[in-house]
Amino acid sequence: MEVMQVLHMNKGAGETSYATNSTVQSNIISTAKPVTEEAILDIFNHVLPESVGIADLGCSSGPNTLLVVSEILNVIYAKWQQLGRPCSPEFRVYLNDLIGNDFNNVFGSLPAFYNKLKEEKGSEFGPCFISGVPGSFYGRVFPSKSLHFVHSSSSLHWLSQVPPGLESKDGRGSWNKGKIYISKTSPDCVLEAYSSQFQKDWSVFLKSRAEEIVGGGRMVLSFMGRRSTDPRSKESCYQWELLARALMSMVSEGLIEEKEVDSFNAPYYAPSPEEVKFGIYKEGSFILDRLEMFEIDWDGGDGDGDNYDATPTSSTLSNGARVAKTIRAVVESMLESHFGGDVMDGLFQRYGEMVGNHLAKTRAKYINLVISLVRKV
Amino acid sequence: MEVMQVLHMNKGAGETSYATNSTVQSNIISTAKPVTEEAILDIFNHVLPESVGIADLGCSSGPNTLLVVSEILNVIYAKWQQLGRPCSPEFRVYLNDLIGNDFNNVFGSLPAFYNKLKEEKGSEFGPCFISGVPGSFYGRVFPSKSLHFVHSSSSLHWLSQVPPGLESKDGRGSWNKGKIYISKTSPDCVLEAYSSQFQKDWSVFLKSRAEEIVGGGRMVLSFMGRRSTDPRSKESCYQWELLARALMSMVSEGLIEEKEVDSFNAPYYAPSPEEVKFGIYKEGSFILDRLEMFEIDWDGGDGDGDNYDATPTSSTLSNGARVAKTIRAVVESMLESHFGGDVMDGLFQRYGEMVGNHLAKTRAKYINLVISLVRKV
Repeated sequence: MEVMQVLHMNKGAGETSYATNSTVQSNIISTAKPVTEEAILDIFNHVLPESVGIADLGCSSGPNTLLVVSEILNVIYAKWQQLGRPCSPEFRVYLNDLIGNDFNNVFGSLPAFYNKLKEEKGSEFGPCFISGVPGSFYGRVFPSKSLHFVHSSSSLHWLSQVPPGLESKDGRGSWNKGKIYISKTSPDCVLEAYSSQFQKDWSVFLKSRAEEIVGGGRMVLSFMGRRSTDPRSKESCYQWELLARALMSMVSEGLIEEKEVDSFNAPYYAPSPEEVKFGIYKEGSFILDRLEMFEIDWDGGDGDGDNYDATPTSSTLSNGARVAKTIRAVVESMLESHFGGDVMDGLFQRYGEMVGNHLAKTRAKYINLVISLVRKV
Repeated sequence: MEVMQVLHMNKGAGETSYATNSTVQSNIISTAKPVTEEAILDIFNHVLPESVGIADLGCSSGPNTLLVVSEILNVIYAKWQQLGRPCSPEFRVYLNDLIGNDFNNVFGSLPAFYNKLKEEKGSEFGPCFISGVPGSFYGRVFPSKSLHFVHSSSSLHWLSQVPPGLESKDGRGSWNKGKIYISKTSPDCVLEAYSSQFQKDWSVFLKSRAEEIVGGGRMVLSFMGRRSTDPRSKESCYQWELLARALMSMVSEGLIEEKEVDSFNAPYYAPSPEEVKFGIYKEGSFILDRLEMFEIDWDGGDGDGDNYDATPTSSTLSNGARVAKTIRAVVESMLESHFGGDVMDGLFQRYGEMVGNHLAKTRAKYINLVISLVRKV
């Protein structure tokens, strides 16, 4: 599977679209907001460029795309005003995602966005130039030293490819039979294949950004991770475990072939803080200023509320369906290209029920990492 | 009609798409190629920047989009090699069009384009960063002083809006009844409305680009125009005349209401060399280095061939259908938003026949202007 060609959030604005099923990602952005603000303010304590370069990596298409941009512009412009600068900087905003992203949809919302900027900030603000930059961030995407601030949310847990080495070389098939990501029963070689692909990608990512970000510039990156050193821990892989079970239940009914499940593996990795730090240290271009972890409920809450219900009611079951939709909006493009479109409805129907049952027993949470990095001068 | 929202070439790659009906525009690009080459070489006789900014305005979506980029990159890279420069510049390529353009389609062809660049030019070339910049070029689109070369082909004959003043103020309706552009019978006030909108747009265009292009940087612009000082001359408006007749024939059969035709006017203008020069002189930021005119057959030939046939044969009639398709791919989005999608097939069927009959009697040609401008230092 060519991740670059196949991975994209569900297009448009319909029921299964990413645009209407991205509350989890929106909450992650909100939770990381103080880190983003702090990072931006720090940059402009040191320099006040006439032209500010900002990039959002894995911008997707939907309400979150311009929400992030809007928040970043607010913070920067407020800083300029607070310093009593006579004129606004020029803003260069680069929206990056893989080529399969629905850029037409993003671009379609720009006129309204520009009008809102003008209304809220007056004619003194800007100019602000927003462009779309298609391509994988595991490689160069932007001109040299063109960026002051780079943001990425809910994207870096995607690997550049499915790790090689998940198939046995002696023809005995997959090392990860019946699973689609690291699972409690995965052998060590599966864990090694995943963590080694993560380190490779992470290093290429940092090296590429190091060329593009000016000295003193910053990145704030948030992505799925784990607290535990053990990549088999439930907190980092149970959503995939349930999806594998939903697939296997379709295998048992003859709707999908077992070998299809065996040959599918998610190009995904939820790293530990130690793995993230190791990569930064090894690559050497960035200083880690801050690393935070927080919990996000599977259904989008920030994990602080107290609406956990121990009996499987219709409400937790429909929570299951809702969670299944948020996952579907993200992974369907990949699953569809492997298993075909016909089985998607049935698959996510089952998945929704399994998630519902799980949520009735426990309050399932993702672990999200937020890191703030400074480009060495 | 909001031109910015409504005007776009027909999307996708189907039978009525712009991608499959853009031979005329492709021939215009080829004919203007020597002027483009000369302009590019002149820029880099004076400066050799590490990072070269290139923009294509009105890039559309189809084979022409990356063809232009490819030719520009070829000329620049050949110049670097000829000068024995040890390393390639970094290329920043900005593809601009209105927000309705099918950028997804353009972006989808980028991986193949990047691979071709690498194959043809080797790994020494670049890096080359291609991005999409949605927005009207009648206003700022790019950061200040970020561009060395700006190209635009078959786009600047589109105005930013339908000229105001085509409706009588005393409630007597349109000054241009039964017509959709300047016609032989148009009163002077229609001509004035059009030429005044052109001068306004042309001035905003030049002023905007003046901010974005470095001193010594260049633009090569080609667009529909006319040789004659008279804007009623057939060479600049007969394709619209026939389209108006096709619409009126549908009115006579009750398929379209007459007032719908009266209230539609094309946001288009084919200026004379004098009008173009006057605007450049008045705005003052650019020197006109070259202005050329050439003929392009309606069916895409360069006007030099000798395949004109004086009897209306099935071949000239099918030429008519072919020409109608090239026009349809360009204007359908506008007509559809005004007259509705249901009448489009019938309209272009009639138009094809009328064009066919016209081509059987004469060899119809567009007049294209190509100008090469230098940004004053």
